[in-house]
Amino acid sequence: MGDAPLVKEHLLIAFQRDLSPAVVEDIHTKFSDAEITIIRLERGSPVPSELARKATILVTFTNLPTVEDAVNLKLIHTLSAGVDHFVTHPVLSSHIPISTSSGIHGPPIAEWTVMNWLIASKEFVRTYENQKLQHWAPLDAYMDKIHDQVGKKVGILGYGSIGRQIARVSAALGMTVHAYTASPRPTPESRRDTRYIVPGTGDADGSIPVSWHHGTDKESIHAFLSLGLDHLVVCVPLTTQTHHLLGAEEFALLSAHAPVVSPKPYLTNIARGRVLDQDALIASLQSGELSGAALDVTNPEPLPAEHPLWKAPNVRISSHVSSLGKEYFPRSLGIAKLNMERLGRGEPLVNEYKRTKGY
Amino acid sequence: MGDAPLVKEHLLIAFQRDLSPAVVEDIHTKFSDAEITIIRLERGSPVPSELARKATILVTFTNLPTVEDAVNLKLIHTLSAGVDHFVTHPVLSSHIPISTSSGIHGPPIAEWTVMNWLIASKEFVRTYENQKLQHWAPLDAYMDKIHDQVGKKVGILGYGSIGRQIARVSAALGMTVHAYTASPRPTPESRRDTRYIVPGTGDADGSIPVSWHHGTDKESIHAFLSLGLDHLVVCVPLTTQTHHLLGAEEFALLSAHAPVVSPKPYLTNIARGRVLDQDALIASLQSGELSGAALDVTNPEPLPAEHPLWKAPNVRISSHVSSLGKEYFPRSLGIAKLNMERLGRGEPLVNEYKRTKGY
Repeated sequence: MGDAPLVKEHLLIAFQRDLSPAVVEDIHTKFSDAEITIIRLERGSPVPSELARKATILVTFTNLPTVEDAVNLKLIHTLSAGVDHFVTHPVLSSHIPISTSSGIHGPPIAEWTVMNWLIASKEFVRTYENQKLQHWAPLDAYMDKIHDQVGKKVGILGYGSIGRQIARVSAALGMTVHAYTASPRPTPESRRDTRYIVPGTGDADGSIPVSWHHGTDKESIHAFLSLGLDHLVVCVPLTTQTHHLLGAEEFALLSAHAPVVSPKPYLTNIARGRVLDQDALIASLQSGELSGAALDVTNPEPLPAEHPLWKAPNVRISSHVSSLGKEYFPRSLGIAKLNMERLGRGEPLVNEYKRTKGY
Repeated sequence: MGDAPLVKEHLLIAFQRDLSPAVVEDIHTKFSDAEITIIRLERGSPVPSELARKATILVTFTNLPTVEDAVNLKLIHTLSAGVDHFVTHPVLSSHIPISTSSGIHGPPIAEWTVMNWLIASKEFVRTYENQKLQHWAPLDAYMDKIHDQVGKKVGILGYGSIGRQIARVSAALGMTVHAYTASPRPTPESRRDTRYIVPGTGDADGSIPVSWHHGTDKESIHAFLSLGLDHLVVCVPLTTQTHHLLGAEEFALLSAHAPVVSPKPYLTNIARGRVLDQDALIASLQSGELSGAALDVTNPEPLPAEHPLWKAPNVRISSHVSSLGKEYFPRSLGIAKLNMERLGRGEPLVNEYKRTKGY
């Protein structure tokens, strides 16, 4: 459907793994008017000259051409949410428009987050182990022990696309959401999400939080941690400012201000392992200062088999997979397609990387 | 706070188990103006005459007084959602108002439901077993295997307070909701939830479903199962009409109409075990016609250790505990308190059992 393009696009997709048949089929369906090349390249290795010169659209995670080879490129679309991993590459100083996959991580990571909350509050692991034993557990094992999320307060440290979808589901569960951003967001305009949003998800106009907080200084963070939160979700980018943003002092504050009738606060980290002081986290889990933690990221990664974090009380660890799933490529390529169409119509791109702003 | 009652109420709470200290404290806080008696009685045994005669408000699950002893009773509040289990008791034919705990089961059961969906779609059990082995799983184990709920279609068979909270969370996850009720709901008024709703939850005005369906005949049910559902949630009451409502034919229909790109349909039963033909369910899970099932109810209960359902593929079984948790008593007693206040002001009760309608 739609108008046939005047010029046939040459779409080059470079990735470090083979794509599944379902993804390849999706690519051919989405870009049925384009000539398509899919190539597997080592992580970070350059795109071969001949392929690069032919391509008009490049979709990639870590593979870029030289500036000289980028003669026909009209768009570079990255499969990642940001361009941090190749921000110093010469091709980024060229004029070629670059778009990111920002926004597609919201739904899967929000689902991963809420799943872990519920596994903890409903004591699913006990249910699971009982099933393995084919044992019908008595009511007493649940009645006064499990709890639900209604009325719980969640603080979201970093209110981007991921935080916004967590907020959306939290609100549906009957929770109240408190948002934290680095820069102030005093106006309705400043609270909008201007990047790509998976349809039917997120918080486009920033209307879900019952309170907004901001700052890059310790006092601002500490005030946020003192709101009486049941949940703290960490989804800030890793920078020199956010390295070890949360440590012993912060976990103690969070715990001290927790609602009396609730379990101790539950921590979710879907940012980067080094945003937390991991030893302090283990200590807070061991002391009961925190009731549990869901960690999709650790320091280091992979987490070595002998690391004590694996066995910290009430911790759930996954191997940096919370954003993954069958939908990842189709969604990212959907943005590339949107932008191909927008380029054709001379419209502003979705998720365009602004060289002057650095994001 | 509030006006002191002119007459001191005598609140009698009769239950088959001891209440936790937290619940007892909550009772004394909520009914600080009343004289309170808490008694443990065997399931179904009568309330002792002396206590019954003194009580003005009775909160109970299965324990009722004789009609003769109910001289001072102004309200019987049941801890259960319905009164089916004592509907033939003589005291129900008296004039004493009766209220139920309908509505309080929504949030915990919706959380239990969504938790099980996500455990299945995110393959949490694999993550959990890897953590026990202190093993950092490779991305390949997740990338093309797990999926999310965005765009998935859920059919809710029985759109009461539980179905409505499941709908609310489903919509937040980006899903579309299809509602099924026994009687037609053609008008906005008929789609309202008129019973108690836990604040911040549910679907009070019935605006969440994208389509409504109804009927008690096989054709209507079959048409509903043919909508192309990813999820079917069973939350109908068990009656002679709903006994074995879903069997081999229905699972086959559901499977045959499933979206091509999705996993096969996932079944959730939080109604009663006998609403399903359990042998047919096991067969559909074994054949892959259904991708999985979350069952909080079975036939019989407790499910015997040797029963094949325990080991059916991709089934999650819990022991009829999905409605439970620390919030159960406080919420139910909150309705009793609301009604005590409404009685005092001569207002209509919340969740009043209508003898003429039978619910």
